[in-house]
Amino acid sequence: MRVRIGSGPLFEMKPVSVTIWNEFIHERTDPQVARIYPHGIHSAIAAGIGPYGFRIRTATLEQPENGLSPEVLEQTDVLIWWGHLAHEQVSDEVVDRIHARVLQGMGLVVLHSGHRSKIFQKLMGTTCDLKWRTAGERERLWVVAPSHPIAEGIGEYIELPHEETYGEFFDIPAPEELVFIGWFQGGEVFRSGCAFSRGLGKIFYFQPGHEEYPIYYNRDVLRVIANAVRWAAAPHGALPVFGNVPPLENV
Amino acid sequence: MRVRIGSGPLFEMKPVSVTIWNEFIHERTDPQVARIYPHGIHSAIAAGIGPYGFRIRTATLEQPENGLSPEVLEQTDVLIWWGHLAHEQVSDEVVDRIHARVLQGMGLVVLHSGHRSKIFQKLMGTTCDLKWRTAGERERLWVVAPSHPIAEGIGEYIELPHEETYGEFFDIPAPEELVFIGWFQGGEVFRSGCAFSRGLGKIFYFQPGHEEYPIYYNRDVLRVIANAVRWAAAPHGALPVFGNVPPLENV
Amino acid sequence: MRVRIGSGPLFEMKPVSVTIWNEFIHERTDPQVARIYPHGIHSAIAAGIGPYGFRIRTATLEQPENGLSPEVLEQTDVLIWWGHLAHEQVSDEVVDRIHARVLQGMGLVVLHSGHRSKIFQKLMGTTCDLKWRTAGERERLWVVAPSHPIAEGIGEYIELPHEETYGEFFDIPAPEELVFIGWFQGGEVFRSGCAFSRGLGKIFYFQPGHEEYPIYYNRDVLRVIANAVRWAAAPHGALPVFGNVPPLENV
Amino acid sequence: MRVRIGSGPLFEMKPVSVTIWNEFIHERTDPQVARIYPHGIHSAIAAGIGPYGFRIRTATLEQPENGLSPEVLEQTDVLIWWGHLAHEQVSDEVVDRIHARVLQGMGLVVLHSGHRSKIFQKLMGTTCDLKWRTAGERERLWVVAPSHPIAEGIGEYIELPHEETYGEFFDIPAPEELVFIGWFQGGEVFRSGCAFSRGLGKIFYFQPGHEEYPIYYNRDVLRVIANAVRWAAAPHGALPVFGNVPPLENV
Repeated sequence: MRVRIGSGPLFEMKPVSVTIWNEFIHERTDPQVARIYPHGIHSAIAAGIGPYGFRIRTATLEQPENGLSPEVLEQTDVLIWWGHLAHEQVSDEVVDRIHARVLQGMGLVVLHSGHRSKIFQKLMGTTCDLKWRTAGERERLWVVAPSHPIAEGIGEYIELPHEETYGEFFDIPAPEELVFIGWFQGGEVFRSGCAFSRGLGKIFYFQPGHEEYPIYYNRDVLRVIANAVRWAAAPHGALPVFGNVPPLENV
Repeated sequence: MRVRIGSGPLFEMKPVSVTIWNEFIHERTDPQVARIYPHGIHSAIAAGIGPYGFRIRTATLEQPENGLSPEVLEQTDVLIWWGHLAHEQVSDEVVDRIHARVLQGMGLVVLHSGHRSKIFQKLMGTTCDLKWRTAGERERLWVVAPSHPIAEGIGEYIELPHEETYGEFFDIPAPEELVFIGWFQGGEVFRSGCAFSRGLGKIFYFQPGHEEYPIYYNRDVLRVIANAVRWAAAPHGALPVFGNVPPLENV
Repeated sequence: MRVRIGSGPLFEMKPVSVTIWNEFIHERTDPQVARIYPHGIHSAIAAGIGPYGFRIRTATLEQPENGLSPEVLEQTDVLIWWGHLAHEQVSDEVVDRIHARVLQGMGLVVLHSGHRSKIFQKLMGTTCDLKWRTAGERERLWVVAPSHPIAEGIGEYIELPHEETYGEFFDIPAPEELVFIGWFQGGEVFRSGCAFSRGLGKIFYFQPGHEEYPIYYNRDVLRVIANAVRWAAAPHGALPVFGNVPPLENV
Repeated sequence: MRVRIGSGPLFEMKPVSVTIWNEFIHERTDPQVARIYPHGIHSAIAAGIGPYGFRIRTATLEQPENGLSPEVLEQTDVLIWWGHLAHEQVSDEVVDRIHARVLQGMGLVVLHSGHRSKIFQKLMGTTCDLKWRTAGERERLWVVAPSHPIAEGIGEYIELPHEETYGEFFDIPAPEELVFIGWFQGGEVFRSGCAFSRGLGKIFYFQPGHEEYPIYYNRDVLRVIANAVRWAAAPHGALPVFGNVPPLENV
């Protein structure tokens, strides 16, 4: 990408490379889900955030190396993750590879039931467990950090007519930035938008996205995911040096 | 207080000195409130947290120096604050005095409409504004930091049958520890239990307590206030030295 | 600014408008400082961050309304602040105006002795006091949050051959993100790069910049200031609504 | 323990049960270390924090189940951890057991080279790597959170005449509370006192304690460890319920 400021010189800008990972099981085994996402949740998200100018590819569980070879991850600035039924089928080697890449600066956006994925648990250090029920309740996601770039273009809240209910206690470390709190009809609240940093990498957990509702067609939900990608793709500092080092001063 | 561990020696323990400050206007002008709190909100809280072993005194707006002379504050480990109609009538001198004492280590527990008090605004550096309505809605305060001592003795949530609704955005700095999130029947959420530290002092904002409902008789609400007092009264480090200092190393 | 992604459409991008405020006294009264900054610290910073593509203007204390009329602030995305001798001469009206603009989303980058400015104290709610001495010690600013965009382009640390020493305790609220910790030859450490958010606005405090050393010609220091401007100018969420609101659900 | 307030009734108080875990290899293989800690680091710490009234036991690597059977952990309020050479020899089963207990409310105080222990890495979700050298440099640990109970009884800093140097970047999640920053003669800084919470449990990492220097005889270091035990043993909220739950409201 080339950028010109005023009549000045043209700058090159590198577009953000996004890999959308999806377990891709519900959509092939449950007709109700297949009707909503005929080409999979990953394709719906890819189409939905397409207009934001990312370089997008998708990957799914059944591919070799779960679609996440070292090459793919090396070329990924931000990884989006949706999984639910088959967390255990993601290979430990792939999980370790993603973990290392996050610490080296790759962004990670974990969606909905991805809270129980191996990679999210490993990065959080906790069980990431929560309460839930599937009752098609209305949810309202309130912005509680309006200074955050992930809230750009969103009003005071996002309303979802039907969503799986998630409830507290959500067993994660206290988020560094809490951007959204979800209100559910049935009486629960949930920390629905949580930002973390680990090593050089940034992580955003975003709760919406039960497979039985067309949530990844919601304009606001897509906007938040796109914002999260941009935020997680922001530049960072230098790779740290670890281990034995000589003194910098005369001692 | 003297403490014996096993058959060992007896230790002295200093009980916590609490001053409960109340504006004390509603209770003398509004018969409905007077029926609930015939001796004032301060007296109800004093009675309610009495069993926790604090040394309690009360202070009200109409007293000389708003009841908060230098001597009173000097002898106060934790100040509890309830105000609503007359924030502007608290003298700036008293506010500055409280501010200085908090930075020197006095705890501060700000209740309900105290969010708009001069002292809370001054310590937060923001407007502390919010949304509200008085519709007698049910509130459920969920514990989202169960590791926090302020959550001791409370179940997963506190339920209040009727409370004034407060809604986000609550214009405060992101709390250092978010202990409670409130769910309201009308569709709002609220960061209802927020912990901060400033200088040597600790501050807890706790949302329940509209004057038209008997909230300060609720066992759980009183327990949280007592826990907050203990937390805010915990020991702290040494008074810092500021200004010009010589080097500690040869330079 | 117009941006083209690949062979795709051309996007407009709004450049960031920066106002650099300087007290501008040392440079006109102290020959040693005048030699280093003949046109003032503000001009040196303006020249130094010029290559980053901002729309820059400067403002100084002696101008009408301290150079910060409502119009100027309205057109400012990020305000940079350097002051030392004359904090008290900045008018309260101007301070309140800046405060309101920060809460509405203007970024603020406070440099060095600006820690004692009225606006920083007001936003922090604390004294912002610290230890200091002017002994020309070496400082090394270590990056402790390499995931932060403010650390972009910086190595593991920034080394300054001579700087005024600042020491802890620095009486600020715990920063939301601590990006730099300063090491000083004489034995002190300092939280030298501190990020905060207040309302819709973002604030970065950056410690380097004593007027007697040519610090605002240092490539790394300028890079951090430019990074901080970009970070503070990032988009944010919608302006909140405060006050009495009807319920969103039937109650 | 029984407590009497004034002339009032006698209350029972439960003393804090502490288990001090030590790898206990250096002290049996390195004569220099054996001279400093003839009975092991664990015994020195046990003696040093004895006066604070804890119920103390010790455990070491070579014991069955590494000294940490389910029964021992069940009876432990706070676990102190020192390890260096043999992190890999701690059994995964024991690590998982400790992890579960921390999430259920047991406190954990990780000392010095324990930063690379399996349990700390698992709880942090990062490598916990850092820079180091053994040059016997002077360290000064500055209190940067004087409101924290862990700083009680400590002056503005702790000075250690000789300590192994640890340097940034320390690959941990940003601590929820940063209590100490270490200054080292050779030019490094380090986040030396870091507080975290995970689930119901609290974790404190404290950097001092290289085996070749008599650091666990230092009065201030022992005071911090005792303070950390008390802080980590503080009461907490109720055990959360996870999984499928019915609604609390009629939907």
